[in-house]
Amino acid sequence: MATEHTAKAFDSDLQELTRLVAEMGGLAERMIVESVDALIRRDIVLGKRVVAADAEIDNLQHVIEERAVLTIARRQPMAVDLREIVGAMRVATDLERIGDLAKNMGKRVAALESDFQPLKLIRGLEHMTDLVQSQVKSVLDAYAAHDLPAAMTVWKGDEEVDAICTSLFRELLTYMMEDPRSITAGTHLLFMAKNIERIGDHATNIAETIYYLIHGTPLKETRPKRDRSSSSVVLPGPIAVASNESEQEAK
Amino acid sequence: MATEHTAKAFDSDLQELTRLVAEMGGLAERMIVESVDALIRRDIVLGKRVVAADAEIDNLQHVIEERAVLTIARRQPMAVDLREIVGAMRVATDLERIGDLAKNMGKRVAALESDFQPLKLIRGLEHMTDLVQSQVKSVLDAYAAHDLPAAMTVWKGDEEVDAICTSLFRELLTYMMEDPRSITAGTHLLFMAKNIERIGDHATNIAETIYYLIHGTPLKETRPKRDRSSSSVVLPGPIAVASNESEQEAK
Repeated sequence: MATEHTAKAFDSDLQELTRLVAEMGGLAERMIVESVDALIRRDIVLGKRVVAADAEIDNLQHVIEERAVLTIARRQPMAVDLREIVGAMRVATDLERIGDLAKNMGKRVAALESDFQPLKLIRGLEHMTDLVQSQVKSVLDAYAAHDLPAAMTVWKGDEEVDAICTSLFRELLTYMMEDPRSITAGTHLLFMAKNIERIGDHATNIAETIYYLIHGTPLKETRPKRDRSSSSVVLPGPIAVASNESEQEAK
Repeated sequence: MATEHTAKAFDSDLQELTRLVAEMGGLAERMIVESVDALIRRDIVLGKRVVAADAEIDNLQHVIEERAVLTIARRQPMAVDLREIVGAMRVATDLERIGDLAKNMGKRVAALESDFQPLKLIRGLEHMTDLVQSQVKSVLDAYAAHDLPAAMTVWKGDEEVDAICTSLFRELLTYMMEDPRSITAGTHLLFMAKNIERIGDHATNIAETIYYLIHGTPLKETRPKRDRSSSSVVLPGPIAVASNESEQEAK
């Protein structure tokens, strides 16, 4: 069925899709970095810019979806070609969610304008963000290069992000107990930490899409997780920390 | 291009897709109800059942995506037929996210096993969940019936969910300030309230998909939002509440 003409037409459609996904990825990375910069510098204007940028990501996702569907209908790709198109749609869905999460962080910056300056905790958030942003960058590079080993490194690396998130949660809760004036700000930081942790989860989803692209089957292994924040219990008084077994979050 | 045979084959593909989406929707609704039942009754086993059910939803989403893509490739549907397939994929994506959010609530139930029983707040959460669950049910009925007015009612109704969420946030923060022993449990309830609010956002996304199905263009109007929880500031002492302007959350 595939004449040389349709094969060429397909390649050019796919190239354009890949370019759009890369553009979306660049935007998402910038939003992650800027949302945390906005937090650190208490820069409300920058926070609002992150919020505004989300519309662009949403729009790109729609464009990608539309083109992907048209490509499938027009070129009737099979096997690996079809997977390439489905893969682009899936990566775009994860990037759209990453944009949402960064936007939510951007919004919270305005609410944090107070005397609450728990530098150590904010540094912790910053460290976690650096890690997650490098995970997102690596997985997008792996997607562009169809580099499965690099994708699997990201997939396994998320465990470290989870562990940092859980310990940040405990520190934040302890802080809030010691100084009830910090409860509102502490809550916003808890949500920001959770947002960053979830961005990390979406990076692992993209790694799973790369696996599917290359192998044609979903990745069956269960990802090691160390995020216990949904089951953290911090007790007041002499600090006691209990934690239940955790399961996978996103997906 | 569409012979009678392909038209019939397309109809049967579409019917099967719609059936799968309805099955997924039923599961998602049940997860929402059960996660809050688990909270109210402190039923850890039920909470775990909700967590386990998420795998089924994820699996259904994959099946729907796969079939949708095969239908597009095989039948080459155009215009409204193509929109039907894309619509099914979009609704499945939102239902998958709803499943994730309900699962996260199910996980938190175990962490709440304590003496913390703020009945009024838990009732508030329950009320909010009832509302959101009926929004999800209504929008899925509207999707099955292609009933745009019903979908738009859901779309506009989310404002009430947002308002309840914002006021629950303030109450919870106040509670936590008054009694630091409630901070950990209060935090879990804050996250649960936010999860329910986000489930409501996904119901409005589905309403937007119905609009797109029927009109062939995205809904351009901006949805009225009253969720101020990302920018809530509750000050200790004589209760003072400040709130910034809020923007749209999901999408």
